[in-house]
This record gives sequence, structure tokens and C-alpha cells, in this order.
Amino acid sequence: MAAQEFDLIGIGNAIVDVIARADDDFLAREKIAKGGMSLIDEARTLSLYEAMGPGTIVSGGSAANTIVGAATLGVKAAFIGKVKTDEVGHAFTHDLRATGVHFSTPAAHNGPSTARCMILVTPDGERTMNTYLGACQNLSEADVDAALISASKVTYLEGYLWDPPAAKKAFVKAADIAHNANRVVALTLSDAFCVGRYRDEFLDLIRKKTVDIVFANEHELKALYETSDFEAAADALRNENILGVVTRSAEGSMVITREETLAVPAFPIAKLVDTTGAGDLFAAGFLAGLTRDKDYHTCARLGALAAAEVIQHYGARPEADLLAMARENGLL
Amino acid sequence: MAAQEFDLIGIGNAIVDVIARADDDFLAREKIAKGGMSLIDEARTLSLYEAMGPGTIVSGGSAANTIVGAATLGVKAAFIGKVKTDEVGHAFTHDLRATGVHFSTPAAHNGPSTARCMILVTPDGERTMNTYLGACQNLSEADVDAALISASKVTYLEGYLWDPPAAKKAFVKAADIAHNANRVVALTLSDAFCVGRYRDEFLDLIRKKTVDIVFANEHELKALYETSDFEAAADALRNENILGVVTRSAEGSMVITREETLAVPAFPIAKLVDTTGAGDLFAAGFLAGLTRDKDYHTCARLGALAAAEVIQHYGARPEADLLAMARENGLL
Repeated sequence: MAAQEFDLIGIGNAIVDVIARADDDFLAREKIAKGGMSLIDEARTLSLYEAMGPGTIVSGGSAANTIVGAATLGVKAAFIGKVKTDEVGHAFTHDLRATGVHFSTPAAHNGPSTARCMILVTPDGERTMNTYLGACQNLSEADVDAALISASKVTYLEGYLWDPPAAKKAFVKAADIAHNANRVVALTLSDAFCVGRYRDEFLDLIRKKTVDIVFANEHELKALYETSDFEAAADALRNENILGVVTRSAEGSMVITREETLAVPAFPIAKLVDTTGAGDLFAAGFLAGLTRDKDYHTCARLGALAAAEVIQHYGARPEADLLAMARENGLL
Repeated sequence: MAAQEFDLIGIGNAIVDVIARADDDFLAREKIAKGGMSLIDEARTLSLYEAMGPGTIVSGGSAANTIVGAATLGVKAAFIGKVKTDEVGHAFTHDLRATGVHFSTPAAHNGPSTARCMILVTPDGERTMNTYLGACQNLSEADVDAALISASKVTYLEGYLWDPPAAKKAFVKAADIAHNANRVVALTLSDAFCVGRYRDEFLDLIRKKTVDIVFANEHELKALYETSDFEAAADALRNENILGVVTRSAEGSMVITREETLAVPAFPIAKLVDTTGAGDLFAAGFLAGLTRDKDYHTCARLGALAAAEVIQHYGARPEADLLAMARENGLL
């Protein structure tokens, strides 16, 4: 299967985003908690779509966004995730492959449709996500291609995989395969509510060294350690003896290890349009640097660069030539 | 059917756009003439999709873009066009209705899929369109809802309707119904190549007063009169004794009647991203003004405002609140 080597492989929910502008009143009327990710069923997906404004359809999925971002930065990347053989699934597959990403997970011929995330973007640029997991619920251990994982320097896993039950097993299997091949495993905590659902299990992944790197934003980090004090949460992360990468929106990011704590500024932006994918693209830049043995400061700057690009337009996939931008900034 | 009155009804090809960035080399390699609209068959659609980069899917269609733009400006609008009952057709329908547009043309249950336009946007912001007409080929006279047309102040028709054979008849029928109800009929010439295909018929529509208003960009106008001299083409249009509205990109627009010629400047933009929909949205703004009895200068400024918004992002549907922008600029 994988005679070739990969820098990075991501495993995540294969989701297509339907992005619409909405005001705060709409969120209130529809009883949707602003800023988070809610899981919705098919009936709710249809009724929400009916109620919301015109949509822009762009491939998404947290880990998939990261993989595409990294590939755009020149990283040799692969993805594992489950779509159905429907129009939307076809678009998701196309968009990955068109970016040069290796994607060979068999699509489901039956069962629920390809996953969709209805993303409502408010005028302040904040995104609120409503996810129908659809075909993602059928991602299983059988989809974890051992040869592919073993051939990848870094395996990147999204915390959201804890939502579809079978995917959790696929996650753990992938981490085991990676470690058996002396590879690095990274985890993104995905979402503060997701951390709320699976806190103990995520702490277990960190403490049992199932993962070597953890990505989180400050809300997720505070949720993980059940504190409202960022410094306390950062200290707790420092004591895990892991590579921690924490994003703080406009305040930049922090790279936290037991030995050092680096604060790295964000890139300036002209106009915030849609925060969707900010964390995903930060991870993309950081991992692109890491797989090229850049120092942590450069990795975090690459993350900031990629995040700055993606929040200045709708959709969580890069629109600009990130590689050229990284080179112009002397980062790659 | 139409107990209510409409300001504007559009009849056009119901198309969903798949937008990808591409460089000039890609166009050359794929033998695609830059800047125009080429009709492609299903096999070519699939092979082009295979070859092109990741896509953003947004509802499109020239007249449909105009109708949505006008509705966004507060115009009571309706649309007639043919989709299939597939995922993409469902999205097209949703996006119209979510903008408040009345859309009741029955979708096809069989036959070709909903039309798609593969739009390649080069780094200079120019768009090159490759259209698979699909279900649009089945738009027929039967779809022309006479009550709806009679109840609309302006019937807006796209020249592209001359491509699918049955739609041409629907076009002529709609114009007849509108005129019998003492309504106004507007035509957009759509595309210089389209004018090349149907020059004599378009001139006939103008000279036989099948249409009262004609929208064109300078390329289309030159193609119509087979001249490379813009002034000569403008003179020819002036002699048609019709309301002519000619867009000239950054140079603004001209409103041409036998009595007067108005030159109206474009709106300044921060950055040109994608010219797709510039003409469609210009027509939207102009018609929004016209249906509210604004003077031609204000109509053209409204057109310029709407066009300026749409060329600063990917996709031919407005992303900003055009009505608020028009009010801020004292145009509505």
C-alpha cells in the first residue's frame, strides 16, 4: 500500500461545511449556543437548513482542514475519514486529492449520507457549528491503514473522533500503530464542549502517552483542567511532560514543554471574516514546520500565518498560496 | 398563482458554480479560452473537475445571481429556471428561497443532473467559465408561469437562454406575456461568445422591441455590432432607441438612450478577487433602482455598488448586506 513515506497523516471526521451568515437573533431563535459545535440529527439538519440563509459549500472537517493546510505548505500528507458515495462525498474526496493529499479510505455505499456541518457565521466573525455526523459514524478500525500510519512521521488525530463510537477505536488503533513504528502522535482537543464530554479520556490519552503532542485553544485547555485561570491550566499542561501548543486568538500562541514556554505573536490581519478553521490551520502550519525540523518558534509562526489567512475569508480551507506566503516571511 | 405583485422576475439557466483557483498555465494545458464561457458536456465536466483544484460550491447562474442581488437590495423578486431533484439542485433552490426569492419552477425528476459551471479564477481575478447545462436543457415554455410574469414589473432574461433550445421558446413566450401585461422586458447579452453565436437573433430582439432594456459589457457590445471601436458600438446602440446599460469594469458604466448618455463611475474596491458575477450584480443594482423609480444615475451607482461587493470575494452571490451599503451611500 504505502511504499511511499508521508510527513503527516490525519484521521478525522470527513465533513462538508455549509456556511451561512446569521445574526445573533437567529442563533437565539434556533436555540443554538454561539461559538461551539453541537451534534445534530438528520431531521434537525434539514430543519436548520430550511431556516438558514444561502450557503457556501466548502469541504471541511477539523483534521481534514489541517491536512489540506499542511499539504498547501508542501507537506506530503494523507487522510483517513469516511464519506458516502454521494455528491457531497465526491466533492470532499476531490478537494483532498486536488490538494495532493493521499486519500483512499473506502466510501460507504449505503447508510447515512456524507457528514455536513451547518456553520453560522455572525457579523463578529465568530462561527457556530452544527454537525450531522452521517457517514462518519461508520469510520472503524478496519479503515485504519496500518502501512499508511507506519509510513507517516506524524499521525494527527482530532478529539471529535470520540463522538462517533467506532471512530474512537480507530483512533486508539492508529496511535498504537504509529508508536510501534516509532512515529509521533498528535491530538487536537477540538472543542471545549467536546473536552467536556470526554475530559477523563483525553487526560488519559495524555498521561498514558497515547499522544505526544496536544493542540488546544485556551477555552479547551481551561475545560480540560476545569479551571477559569489560564495560567493554572498552562501550568497543568506543563506538568504533563508533553509538547503542548495553545492558541489564544489575537493574543497569539504558546508552545509549552516542561523545559520551556514560548509565547509567539499572531499575524496581523486586515479584516476578520470567519474564524472557522483558525485552530485547524494553526495546527497545519505548526506541523508543517515540525515535519521539517523547524524550531518551535518558527512552527508557531507558520501556524499563525496559516490561521491568519483562513480567518479572512469564509470557509476553513486556505484560498491563498500559503507556501509562497511562508517563503516570503522566511519561515520555509 | 400570483395574487402578489413582483418587482422583478428573472428567467435563466439554474446553475451551481464550482469555483477553483487556477493559473494561466492550467487554462493553456486544458485548452480553455480565458475570460469566456464555454459549454461542455458531461464527460468533459468530469474530466475537468478531476484536473482542477479544490472547489467552493456556490449557487450561480447569470439571471439567478441578478435576482438574488436584487432581492438582497429589498426587491420583491421571483425566478424561473430548471434544476433536477439532486443535492446540488436542492442547494440552488434553498439559496434562492433563503434570499426571499419566489421560486416554483418544478424540478426535473429524471434526465440530466442540475447544471454546473466550473469556474476557474486566475490570480488576476479573471474568471473563465465552463458550463454543463444539464437539467437547464429541459426548461420549456410550460415552465413560463404567465400569472407570475404578468404580475412582475420587469422580466429579466439572460442571453444564455439561447443555448438550450427549448429555453429560447420560453424566453420569447415570457417576453410576449410581459408586454401583453404592459410590463418591461430586459435582456442581458451574457457573454461575447454567446453574442457571437446568436448575434442576428439578439439584434432582432432589440429591433423588434421584444426587449426594452439591454445590458451588456463593452466586449459584448462590440461583439454585437462587430466592431473593435467602442464609440462606434455605443453609437449603434444609441440608434436602437432602447435603454442601453453598458458596463466597462473599472471604468464604470454608461447609460445610453437616444436622448442622453450618462457615464457613471465604478465604486472603488480594496482588492479584486474574482470577477464572477460582476455584470450580474451590476444589473441587480440597476434594476433595484429602476423598480423604485430612481433616476438612471442612481440606478447605475446601485449597480456599481453591488458589482464592487461581489468581485471582492469568490462566488457570484453577495456576501455583504447590500441594502445597508446602499442606504449608507444614500442610494436607497
